[in-house]
Amino acid sequence: MLSGRPTILGYSAVAGKREGEGPLGRGFDMIFEDTTLGEKSWEKAESALQREAFTRALNKAGISPSQVNYLFAGDLLNQSIASTFGLREYGVPMLGQFGACSTMAQTLALAAIFVDSGAADICAAITSSHFCSAERQFRFPLEYGGQRPPTSQWTVTGAGAAIVGLGGSGVRVADVTVGYITDFGISDTNNMGAAMAPAAAETLTAFFKDTSSKPDDYDLIITGDLGAIGSDLLRQLMERKGYRLGANYTDCGLIIYDRSKQDVHAGGSGCGCSATVLCSYILGKMEAGELKNVVFVATGALMSPTSSQQGESIPGIAHLCHLVAIE
Amino acid sequence: MLSGRPTILGYSAVAGKREGEGPLGRGFDMIFEDTTLGEKSWEKAESALQREAFTRALNKAGISPSQVNYLFAGDLLNQSIASTFGLREYGVPMLGQFGACSTMAQTLALAAIFVDSGAADICAAITSSHFCSAERQFRFPLEYGGQRPPTSQWTVTGAGAAIVGLGGSGVRVADVTVGYITDFGISDTNNMGAAMAPAAAETLTAFFKDTSSKPDDYDLIITGDLGAIGSDLLRQLMERKGYRLGANYTDCGLIIYDRSKQDVHAGGSGCGCSATVLCSYILGKMEAGELKNVVFVATGALMSPTSSQQGESIPGIAHLCHLVAIE
Repeated sequence: MLSGRPTILGYSAVAGKREGEGPLGRGFDMIFEDTTLGEKSWEKAESALQREAFTRALNKAGISPSQVNYLFAGDLLNQSIASTFGLREYGVPMLGQFGACSTMAQTLALAAIFVDSGAADICAAITSSHFCSAERQFRFPLEYGGQRPPTSQWTVTGAGAAIVGLGGSGVRVADVTVGYITDFGISDTNNMGAAMAPAAAETLTAFFKDTSSKPDDYDLIITGDLGAIGSDLLRQLMERKGYRLGANYTDCGLIIYDRSKQDVHAGGSGCGCSATVLCSYILGKMEAGELKNVVFVATGALMSPTSSQQGESIPGIAHLCHLVAIE
Repeated sequence: MLSGRPTILGYSAVAGKREGEGPLGRGFDMIFEDTTLGEKSWEKAESALQREAFTRALNKAGISPSQVNYLFAGDLLNQSIASTFGLREYGVPMLGQFGACSTMAQTLALAAIFVDSGAADICAAITSSHFCSAERQFRFPLEYGGQRPPTSQWTVTGAGAAIVGLGGSGVRVADVTVGYITDFGISDTNNMGAAMAPAAAETLTAFFKDTSSKPDDYDLIITGDLGAIGSDLLRQLMERKGYRLGANYTDCGLIIYDRSKQDVHAGGSGCGCSATVLCSYILGKMEAGELKNVVFVATGALMSPTSSQQGESIPGIAHLCHLVAIE
């Protein structure tokens, strides 16, 4: 539990063409019709997404890079190259993070803890994903045209960045809950939502217990990228723990695309999924007074193609940030 | 600068056969003659190294896993699977870190900041590398027998873990300096030391300025894994900045192997290099009163095979922990 002082001074989400065509498209600060962003590789394009989101968040906060004490950033590319090459030019002390698709909540939680505890004045939280760089690293080269089962999710092309400091008038990070690794033995790499749902259930339960609260106390409880199957499973797991998730519960992966028109199967995924939804839709509605009390829980599947090939299951993790609109 | 309260309550280093045969062999808590550790893959063996180091550090600190508030851990395998699968069973809130070979300093710095600021009571810092898992991921399958140029370094098989809390009687983390990404345009993946030396120079200079101190003020200044070429380059870079590194400067990669007898070319490298040297030799000598005032600077090369194949240079980063023996 934090003192409640860290606030989000500025935030930005940038996204690709498909995300721009989805229901949240109008909320993004920039939509790149050309998802190469003019770069020579998908990996460099993903780096450019982080650079764009960070620069815009800084501008909105009225902060220069030299005022930022620490950057918390990460992504799902091998050795986090989207963050390294996206953020190398700013000269800001950098603490690289790895939390798979939970990275937006992990970086925001660390930024909030650093500011809350006085370890820093201003921190930034940044992450990204890109459909094309993720596909070829985790599944098949795009050219192969591999078939996707209905349980599979679609990696979001986009990045989100948030600047955290003291003062400010928008949204404060009231509490954070850092999750631990859970492993229910699921090994289907086309069903990540099911692998991550148990982690979300553990973290949400710990948060409700720590704060003596219940799901109905919040305007919105939103998970990162469980998608259709994972979010149904989360409802069941929470029911068993005595917590009923009502109509105030949804998942970033369910709302970023129009699943009836956009061919994304079980919904969105990737570090960029929860990052872009947080840094556009959620924080936007909170600033507009439409949402006041939000639980944001991003989930990560901690696997690699190598661990799956070696027969390992898919451990999950979930980190939570409790966000409150400043009256 | 920290208040100086966080102390290292327990630490452990475990290593492979070659490291055990080196000059620091007697200081390791366990040497695995069979570097598979009885596991079915090199990746699983690396996970086992982390588990061994963490368990032994906990035992030496007299701490149970449930008393640890946060685990800071990471490694260089894709998607940090050594840490995920090595630490999944402890049920401790986990914040995955990515700093390439700077990970030991990064995780120790975060653990110290969390304890110092009151964000946590007890934290753990853990990292590892394994020669065989690193070779096949970054260079060639072992069976290929690729030739190594004289500038190349040898990835250490080993893991280090440190438990940080308040009280304790051994060594305190007095200051930390988090580095930023530096890029001098070096692109030779067989000369990582040269790519990382500029980052070490930036971080050391920032530390000396922040603390109004000079190299001679310390018993030992030790970098992570610059090796023979990188550490020579660091001396030159520091000289240009007005700081002369004397006989009190060395590098973990230079002392972990006997370069005259062990065929390791420019020295040791990998996250496990600085981790095993810190968690055996350095902390051991500090506890024994032989060293009192130590600057530990671990360096990381933030590249991936993909970024190098795409023509990118190798950005470096360096994080610093200033360690002081408790009188």
